[in-house]
Amino acid sequence: MKKIIIAIDSFKGCLTSAEAGKAAEKGIKSINPSCHTSVIPIADGGEGLLDVLITATKGKYITLSAHGPLMKMAKTHYGLSGNGRTAIIEMAAISGLPLVPIEQRNPMLTTTFGTGELIKDALNKGCRNFIIGIGGSATNDAGLGMLQALGFRFLDKSGHTLGTGGQIMEAVANIDTSGIHPALRETHFMVACDVANPFYGPDGAAYIFAQQKGADSNMVQRLDEGMQSLAEVIKKTTGKDITNYPGAGAAGGMGGGLLAFFNAELKPGTELLLKAIDFSEKIKGADLIITGEGKADRQTAMGKVPYGILKEAQKEHIPVIVLAGSIENLPELNKAGFKGIFSIAPGPITLEKAMEPEFAKENITRLVSQLYSVITSFG
Amino acid sequence: MKKIIIAIDSFKGCLTSAEAGKAAEKGIKSINPSCHTSVIPIADGGEGLLDVLITATKGKYITLSAHGPLMKMAKTHYGLSGNGRTAIIEMAAISGLPLVPIEQRNPMLTTTFGTGELIKDALNKGCRNFIIGIGGSATNDAGLGMLQALGFRFLDKSGHTLGTGGQIMEAVANIDTSGIHPALRETHFMVACDVANPFYGPDGAAYIFAQQKGADSNMVQRLDEGMQSLAEVIKKTTGKDITNYPGAGAAGGMGGGLLAFFNAELKPGTELLLKAIDFSEKIKGADLIITGEGKADRQTAMGKVPYGILKEAQKEHIPVIVLAGSIENLPELNKAGFKGIFSIAPGPITLEKAMEPEFAKENITRLVSQLYSVITSFG
Repeated sequence: MKKIIIAIDSFKGCLTSAEAGKAAEKGIKSINPSCHTSVIPIADGGEGLLDVLITATKGKYITLSAHGPLMKMAKTHYGLSGNGRTAIIEMAAISGLPLVPIEQRNPMLTTTFGTGELIKDALNKGCRNFIIGIGGSATNDAGLGMLQALGFRFLDKSGHTLGTGGQIMEAVANIDTSGIHPALRETHFMVACDVANPFYGPDGAAYIFAQQKGADSNMVQRLDEGMQSLAEVIKKTTGKDITNYPGAGAAGGMGGGLLAFFNAELKPGTELLLKAIDFSEKIKGADLIITGEGKADRQTAMGKVPYGILKEAQKEHIPVIVLAGSIENLPELNKAGFKGIFSIAPGPITLEKAMEPEFAKENITRLVSQLYSVITSFG
Repeated sequence: MKKIIIAIDSFKGCLTSAEAGKAAEKGIKSINPSCHTSVIPIADGGEGLLDVLITATKGKYITLSAHGPLMKMAKTHYGLSGNGRTAIIEMAAISGLPLVPIEQRNPMLTTTFGTGELIKDALNKGCRNFIIGIGGSATNDAGLGMLQALGFRFLDKSGHTLGTGGQIMEAVANIDTSGIHPALRETHFMVACDVANPFYGPDGAAYIFAQQKGADSNMVQRLDEGMQSLAEVIKKTTGKDITNYPGAGAAGGMGGGLLAFFNAELKPGTELLLKAIDFSEKIKGADLIITGEGKADRQTAMGKVPYGILKEAQKEHIPVIVLAGSIENLPELNKAGFKGIFSIAPGPITLEKAMEPEFAKENITRLVSQLYSVITSFG
C-alpha cells in the first residue's frame, strides 16, 4: 500500500470535505505513519465548489457589491484561481433563492443580473476562463439578466428595451448584441450542471423548478410559454437551437442562456470539479481511493461525488472504498463498482450524536484505521 | 482467500452463535459462492456451552430427574457426546440460582447434590470424560453435595453422617470415601471456570459470591469459616492443599471440591470449549478468522470468546477480524492483536432496532460482504 488518495465529500451539516479527509488520513497514519496519503478536498456542484476550487488552486476570494435577485444591491463574492486566469462563480452567491424572503419569491421578477455583474468584474480583471456553479438559483429568466449585465439588450416587438425578471422572456422579439463585453468572444465557460432538463416543456425549467422558486400555476405556464418564444428568438438570432439540449433548463434556463450566447459547456458538477483539480493525474499510481459522503444510497451510484471519483478510479483500475454516516441500497452501490461501503457508526447511536463533528471524526479515524490494518494484513 | 473460519460468539439477546455465523457466511458467499467457509458455533463457559458441544460432537441430550438446590426433585438434562464417552454437564441445569425462588435463596441450605446425580448417571452410562460448566450456581457447599451423590460420606466429630447444604462444611471432621463410585478413579473432569478466586478468605467463594446467592453477612462469615475448616480436613484426608488454587472458590467452592477429590483440571471456559471442539486443528490452513460478539470492548481483550480465538489464531499466524454490535476501547483491542474491529451498525439506529434479529443478520451479512470484497481486492 504505497499511495492512498482520500477524497471524501462533505458530511453535510457535520464535516467539511477537508475535515473528513483529515480524519481518514489520521486513521491510516495511526497504523502506518509512513504511508503516503493525499487528502483531496472535494465537493459537488452545489455549495462547496467555490471553496474547494479556491483551496485547490491556491486562489482567493474577491468581494464586491452586485444586484441581488430583486435588484437590490448586496455584498457578495466569487473566486479567483491562484494564477488569476480563472474565475469561479457560484450563481447562488448573488442570484440564490435564500437571498429572497419567502413571501417575495417570484420568478417573474427575479433576475440573474448580479451573476452577470460578477462575470463582468472577472472579465475586467483579465479572466478568460470561468467555472460557474448554477445550483440554488431564485430565478427563471433564462439568464437574460446575466446577459443584460454584460451588455446584451433585449427588445420587444416595438423596439423598446425590456427590464428584468422572467416576465420579459415572452416579450423578447429582438436581441441587440452590439454593446456586449468584447472579451466574451475569447472566453470559455465551464458550467457545473447536475440536471438534464430541456429548456421548456413538461420537463423544462418552468414546469419542474419554478414552483419551488415561488411561481403559482399561472406563472409556471407563462414562464414556460415565454421560454418557448425565447427559444425561437434565440434560434433566429444565433442559429442555435437550445430547446432540447440536456441541461438547457437548469437553473431557470440559465443553462440555455449560457449555451446560446457563450462559448460554454455544461458538465456534471463532480466531473467538472475533478477536471478542474486535475484529479485524474493526482490519482495515478494510487493503490486505493477512499471516498465517502454523509449518506450512501442509490443516489451515490447516480452521479454524486463518490460516483465521479469511481469513474476516474476505474480508468486507472484503483479500488474505491466508500465511508458513510449511513448506508442504504448496498447492492446497487456494489454493482456500480465500489469495492466496499462502510458505515462509520460505532454501534447504536442517535442521529444527533452521529452528527457531532468530533464524534464523526473519531468514527472515521477508527474505521479507516481498521480497514487499513485489515487490507495491509492481506495486501 | 482459500479458507475462512467463522466463529462468532452469540450476540446476547439477539442472535445465537450459529445464526451470527451463518449471516457472516452469507456475506462471503454473496461475493464468492465458491469460497471455502466454515462456521463454528461457539460459546463462553456460561449458557450455551452445552448446546455448542452437543452440536460440535453430534451428541444428544439426556433428560432425567434429579435433586434441585433445595433437594426437591426436578426434570433436568445433560449432554452426551456423539461417541458416548464424554458427558457435558452444566451445573446450573440442576443446581442453578434461577431454580430457587428469590425468597428461598440460602447457601447454608442449597446443595450441589443434583449435579452429582448427573455425574453418576453418566458414569453409569460409561462416560469417563466430563466437561463441567460451573457457572450460575445457587450453592456454596464446596461441592460436598455432589460428592455425597457419588458416595462420599461426610462425618462430624462424633462420627455422625452430615446432611446437605453449605452449613455442613464447618462440621466436617472426617470423610469416608469407602463407598464412592468405583469409576471415579478412572475418570477425568475438565471444568470450565472463568474466575480465579481462592477457596476462602476475602477473595474466596463466600465473601465474593455468597451474597448474590442469598447469604446475609453472618452467613457469609460462617460459610467462609466452614471452608477454612473444610480445607484443613481435605488436606488431612487427601494431602492436597486447595486453599489458594486459582478457581478453588468458583461456584461456591465447587472448583475446590472437584480439584480435591477428582482427577480434575480447571480451564477458562473459552479455552476448554476450543479444546473440546478441536479448534486449533480446524483452523489450520485458514487465511482469515472472523469472530465477534454483541459488544466489543476492554473485556473482549481479557478472556472472552474472541480473545480465546485470537490466541489460537496467533499460533497459526491467521489474522482475526472482530464484528460487533458496538465498539469501545478500540486501541486495547488492536493492541491485543485483533487486525480489525468493525461495527455492524449501518448508521444511526436505536438499540431496539439494532437488536432485531433479522436486521442484525442483514447487517452482519452486509459488513462481511464488504470486508471480503475489499480484502480480496488486495489479497
